[in-house]
Amino acid sequence: MSDTRSEGRAQAPGFFRFGLGSFEVVPLHDGVLSRDRPAGFVRNASDAEVGEAFATAGMPRDKLTLTFTPLLVHTGRQAVLIDTGLGTAGPAGTGRLAANLAAAGVSPEAVGTVVISHFHSDHIMGLLKADGTSAFPNAEVLVPEKEWEFWMDEGRAASAPEALQAQFAGARKVFGDRGDAVRRYGWGEEVLPGITAVKASGHTPGMSALEIASGDEAMMFVADITNNPVIFARHPEWQAMFDMDPEDATATRRSILDRAASDRLRLHFFHAPFPATGFVAKNRAGYEFLPALWE
Amino acid sequence: MSDTRSEGRAQAPGFFRFGLGSFEVVPLHDGVLSRDRPAGFVRNASDAEVGEAFATAGMPRDKLTLTFTPLLVHTGRQAVLIDTGLGTAGPAGTGRLAANLAAAGVSPEAVGTVVISHFHSDHIMGLLKADGTSAFPNAEVLVPEKEWEFWMDEGRAASAPEALQAQFAGARKVFGDRGDAVRRYGWGEEVLPGITAVKASGHTPGMSALEIASGDEAMMFVADITNNPVIFARHPEWQAMFDMDPEDATATRRSILDRAASDRLRLHFFHAPFPATGFVAKNRAGYEFLPALWE
Repeated sequence: MSDTRSEGRAQAPGFFRFGLGSFEVVPLHDGVLSRDRPAGFVRNASDAEVGEAFATAGMPRDKLTLTFTPLLVHTGRQAVLIDTGLGTAGPAGTGRLAANLAAAGVSPEAVGTVVISHFHSDHIMGLLKADGTSAFPNAEVLVPEKEWEFWMDEGRAASAPEALQAQFAGARKVFGDRGDAVRRYGWGEEVLPGITAVKASGHTPGMSALEIASGDEAMMFVADITNNPVIFARHPEWQAMFDMDPEDATATRRSILDRAASDRLRLHFFHAPFPATGFVAKNRAGYEFLPALWE
Repeated sequence: MSDTRSEGRAQAPGFFRFGLGSFEVVPLHDGVLSRDRPAGFVRNASDAEVGEAFATAGMPRDKLTLTFTPLLVHTGRQAVLIDTGLGTAGPAGTGRLAANLAAAGVSPEAVGTVVISHFHSDHIMGLLKADGTSAFPNAEVLVPEKEWEFWMDEGRAASAPEALQAQFAGARKVFGDRGDAVRRYGWGEEVLPGITAVKASGHTPGMSALEIASGDEAMMFVADITNNPVIFARHPEWQAMFDMDPEDATATRRSILDRAASDRLRLHFFHAPFPATGFVAKNRAGYEFLPALWE
């Protein structure tokens, strides 16, 4: 008999592989952030109701715990990273993308394209290393046109409410010096062969989902159409405080979840329990998140 | 641009850690088995209905894909392994427990106790190495008393229907020479400090769930009260062909899922998508499996 607990031994490497046609898809864990759940986290449900829903999912009633899972897509032509995690800008427990990318056998230099879904810090700050240089020095960076227009507008930045100041500053920190080095894409555009941008506004003005198709298989990176889908697929009408336009965000959520349920489309949620990919089924009250098998 | 697909690069190590009171709990992936779904897989639902349910969960309609996830519990006094996977007895894609145990930093010699839930081959064959010697040479092996009585009865083995012959033979191969070296436990018994056996019969006559408690936290290893819970928690009345006593298995399934939903008890399902732990919520038709966060 002996104490075999790890006490500081690291979590398993947070990567996972599956095939999609001739593509290889690799969810990469960037970490976890847990804090007290802010009062009014859901605009149109009471804190008690939300606490009940959290407890049902086995989560502490009064904490808000978020996990972050960017997605790497090996297309055969190149390695494409969708969203980047918090990089070195977040607290302890985040910024693990670089380590998990290495565990998955990919160097930062090997990433040929980074596609950004929207400009919230947990999606973009990983573009920078601690010294402010590019974390993916050989990658072309693709961003949603409408997201760029919103966040990079100087007038809007100057007059932004305090709650959004940090987001505007983050966007400037990441993209301020890049200018022409960033390619802006529109909704409906095939941004790379097999990867098509889909309108997913509401959470932010220009958020894009990315549909990924190879051969006869397809899936969709749905970014933040839900906070944790274990909660928000079951309660699709709930408006999280992070959704900038709650009505539009709800319409986007319902539209994509409806289509995914009808078409049995595999979804990757940025904030789902790792490995964060699965399916949704419609039920009386909303949708259920059905995690995919680890094969 | 270059082809960065892995082509043979290994899947991520299949382990995962979480704390439970002062215990550390580590799901360990043993692999995946996929074959044509047998006709009549669910006794009381049509193959078409079952195919629909599989498609809803994003699984091929006509395949039966099973994943296997034993559970390691570091109690602080010793390392306890609950079920063992297929060892070297299964086809390619299975028998990965040994590699994942090593990836999690634990040697086979460090396992102090192996607790078996029931005698199906995917739970017991991993007790043996290819040469027939013990895969966990220093471990005491604990088995359900009623399971032992059923499978080790010579008269019953001799007169068993053909479909069960392989299971009887497997039990003999694993346990035939052990005799007194195996400790038999009863339902309701605290088999080790913090680990208590719970009646879970029906799938097999003596199957046991294991409730694991430390401090003010608890969870339950529920073995095969469902085949993949993404299907069978949603359809708790469905009787899979692997359930030896379908009525008893259904009663067990409902009883444990009901309690878990009421008590918000974390469950580990042997056949759930990795990492195979989560919660259940009751809905109109049955239950939903809510995967736990990877923290």
